[in-house]
Amino acid sequence: MRFSNSILKWPLFQLPKQLRRYLWLTVVMAPAALASSATTSEHNAALTFLWIAVILIAAKVSGLVEKWGQPAVLGELVIGVILGNLTLLGLNLFEPIKTDPAITFLAELGVVILLFQIGLESNLREMKKVGLNAFLVAVLGVIVPFVLGTYIVGPWIMPDLTNNAYLFIGAALTATSVGITARVFQDLKKLQTPEAKIVLGAAVIDDVLGLIILAIVSAIVTVGGVGLGVIGWITAKAVLFLVLAIILGQLFAPYFGKIMAKIHSGSGTKITMALSFGFTFAYLAQYIGLAPIVGAFAAGLVLDAVHFRHFKDANLVNDIRQITHTAPVATKEAVAVTLDKHAHRHVEDLIEPIGFLLIPIFFVVTGMSVDLSTLFDLNVLLIALIISAVAVVGKLVAGLVAGQANKWIVGFGMVPRGEVGLIFAMIGKSLGVINDEIFSIIVIMVILTTLATPPILSALLKKNSATA
Amino acid sequence: MRFSNSILKWPLFQLPKQLRRYLWLTVVMAPAALASSATTSEHNAALTFLWIAVILIAAKVSGLVEKWGQPAVLGELVIGVILGNLTLLGLNLFEPIKTDPAITFLAELGVVILLFQIGLESNLREMKKVGLNAFLVAVLGVIVPFVLGTYIVGPWIMPDLTNNAYLFIGAALTATSVGITARVFQDLKKLQTPEAKIVLGAAVIDDVLGLIILAIVSAIVTVGGVGLGVIGWITAKAVLFLVLAIILGQLFAPYFGKIMAKIHSGSGTKITMALSFGFTFAYLAQYIGLAPIVGAFAAGLVLDAVHFRHFKDANLVNDIRQITHTAPVATKEAVAVTLDKHAHRHVEDLIEPIGFLLIPIFFVVTGMSVDLSTLFDLNVLLIALIISAVAVVGKLVAGLVAGQANKWIVGFGMVPRGEVGLIFAMIGKSLGVINDEIFSIIVIMVILTTLATPPILSALLKKNSATA
Repeated sequence: MRFSNSILKWPLFQLPKQLRRYLWLTVVMAPAALASSATTSEHNAALTFLWIAVILIAAKVSGLVEKWGQPAVLGELVIGVILGNLTLLGLNLFEPIKTDPAITFLAELGVVILLFQIGLESNLREMKKVGLNAFLVAVLGVIVPFVLGTYIVGPWIMPDLTNNAYLFIGAALTATSVGITARVFQDLKKLQTPEAKIVLGAAVIDDVLGLIILAIVSAIVTVGGVGLGVIGWITAKAVLFLVLAIILGQLFAPYFGKIMAKIHSGSGTKITMALSFGFTFAYLAQYIGLAPIVGAFAAGLVLDAVHFRHFKDANLVNDIRQITHTAPVATKEAVAVTLDKHAHRHVEDLIEPIGFLLIPIFFVVTGMSVDLSTLFDLNVLLIALIISAVAVVGKLVAGLVAGQANKWIVGFGMVPRGEVGLIFAMIGKSLGVINDEIFSIIVIMVILTTLATPPILSALLKKNSATA
Repeated sequence: MRFSNSILKWPLFQLPKQLRRYLWLTVVMAPAALASSATTSEHNAALTFLWIAVILIAAKVSGLVEKWGQPAVLGELVIGVILGNLTLLGLNLFEPIKTDPAITFLAELGVVILLFQIGLESNLREMKKVGLNAFLVAVLGVIVPFVLGTYIVGPWIMPDLTNNAYLFIGAALTATSVGITARVFQDLKKLQTPEAKIVLGAAVIDDVLGLIILAIVSAIVTVGGVGLGVIGWITAKAVLFLVLAIILGQLFAPYFGKIMAKIHSGSGTKITMALSFGFTFAYLAQYIGLAPIVGAFAAGLVLDAVHFRHFKDANLVNDIRQITHTAPVATKEAVAVTLDKHAHRHVEDLIEPIGFLLIPIFFVVTGMSVDLSTLFDLNVLLIALIISAVAVVGKLVAGLVAGQANKWIVGFGMVPRGEVGLIFAMIGKSLGVINDEIFSIIVIMVILTTLATPPILSALLKKNSATA
């Protein structure tokens, strides 16, 4: 009831509308809000609806890039960069999107859905085949940029910093953000290639390594060193989570499916099960210290269309079956095979519309977060370009151990840095280890590796399928 | 960077994990967070993922009520009541769900999706046919409870209150919350009945009337009266919005569809268009002072499957067509008709999975907001029961003008009170017009009308189809 004091001061003319609007803001869903006054925030849900519409339409319009052979994700990022930097032209219309907590949450939900979707489209057996290469790519892709950043290029181009600053610069260069690459593979329908599998596998391992590095670097900076026991425990937890998730998931997913089928059948149950599974894994991953998207990916990997086979979508399937009942045997069989094929893809099909709603929000918002004004300081920009080159080279070197797969595709697939790089930058800044300039340099590195990857990767993928 | 001060005080052992987790909370989607430090909230997105999973599983388990012939929404409300009141047994496990702003937002999004879905399943032409009856039901359904509450039953059972208090009690009794009823009709596949159309139409008109009453009552209480001009302007805006929305929507929706089709085709575009349209209308409705769900419903009404006909879903349709190409003409034609039928329902089918994710969140959270402890004060409970009876009788009287439709179904369909009733209660409380007891009485009235409607309505609907 925080409007009690100010309410009487409003002019009469505005009163009813304002009251009503304000109340809708705070209590659109009033029963919930009432239950606990803590839920009455001043968040304007209806305004968020408008922002969602704006983002979705912008994303769709940006789909034009597909006509030029670019992946849709590039369009979403670019339109995001444009919307987010209109303020440079004095247009602040879309600025509230950046600070809308509901939009931020939907974006997070979107990238979790994306990785879950990609996990569903991936296959654990096939992932295992490329396991060793993925491991090598991940390890090399962490070591090379770290060594280059901390001991070679960092001290060379910025000679006046502390050792701890170099440490943080190197650490910020290590972790791949797999969302962008996964989306490019998905947009170009290349998720089934060995390159996609290696990159996805390496990204999971990369996240575990990032967790370990964060522990070590933070400890070195704060207390000058770290015990092996602590590192071992962090590592063990993360590895155990992944291994257990996959083993237990494979073991119990079929039973889970059967139990749920008994309660209630139909596509509603199917998608509810799948999503609950994915969200729980996302939570558990974060609980253990990993990225939620790693959990969502693991959940998708574990869930297999097979576990949902006993669900049937009554509508179309039954209608078609009934009609073709009297058709010639050959037709009937062909129809049955087709129906079966589509039934198998059903979980993915059900997740797809949810992805249509949420995934573009993640990429447009990511684009919006790019602050072009950071590029205006030439000195900073120059150093950032060198650091970005280190970021790229480090991962390209890692690509060399990709085995039979195309080394360039794997290497560039690992290039995008995102949240983890920024986490290092933010911790470094909060600990007073790195200054605003270094912070900006890391931000620019993240921006450049994020924006450069989609066009380069899509060109490489097309060249690869042309020669294959 | 608000963690800068406290970070060094944490014990080393906890540091890395806590750091990492905290940072995931604040910057899971770090680029966006970075762009503006205002976005770094302490909201734990991953925990919200867990709550979503809990809610979805709970909702699915509660689907058991369908085996007893009850609509699924009743199960969702009841499981919500249980989860939300476990605290009475000393179990606080699920309490954070009530205060999670992301869950609150998803619930709001869910009810908007529900009414949009229901709008899509409804048909403007058919709605117009019952227009007069809907109007009469709405008007009578506002006048009768208002008069009963303000001038008769209110002063009779609570003789010591001020006139303004009676005014607020009466006003709180007026507005129907259509979400519950709409869901019951949907669960029981009765959306195409005249009763459903009258209730939906009346709910829209009811919301406009609620807006006007809120204006009048607030003005009377705060400044002792209100000019007709202000009321006229509020009414005109709301009516204009609905009329314009429907006229312009019908005019432009086909073109909008065609333009979007040129940019990019496929189901992604189809659902993006539909959702953007629905969300924009939800926003506009709220901007004008109406409920966002009224806007979403209007958007759904305007959008017709016809506008999406030029989109084709390549996957299944093409496969089936190819196979049945050589089949006998009769089979081929039957298949074509079936495919066409399903193609027409395609927008609804695409929205459905989004509804599976979001709509149960609304109803479970609504159930969770029911505070059973309000029922413990016998005196309050007794008065609340009488007020609830007034709430029911008022709408049943309105049902009498439902024309050819079943009067009981329409009447009970209008019974649930929700957000608008609570808004009145909250304003009344904030203005000092009503005390905590009256507030509790209104809350109990909202609870009872909400929880009693699904079983009663479903019994009436079944009886009606048995006799029809």
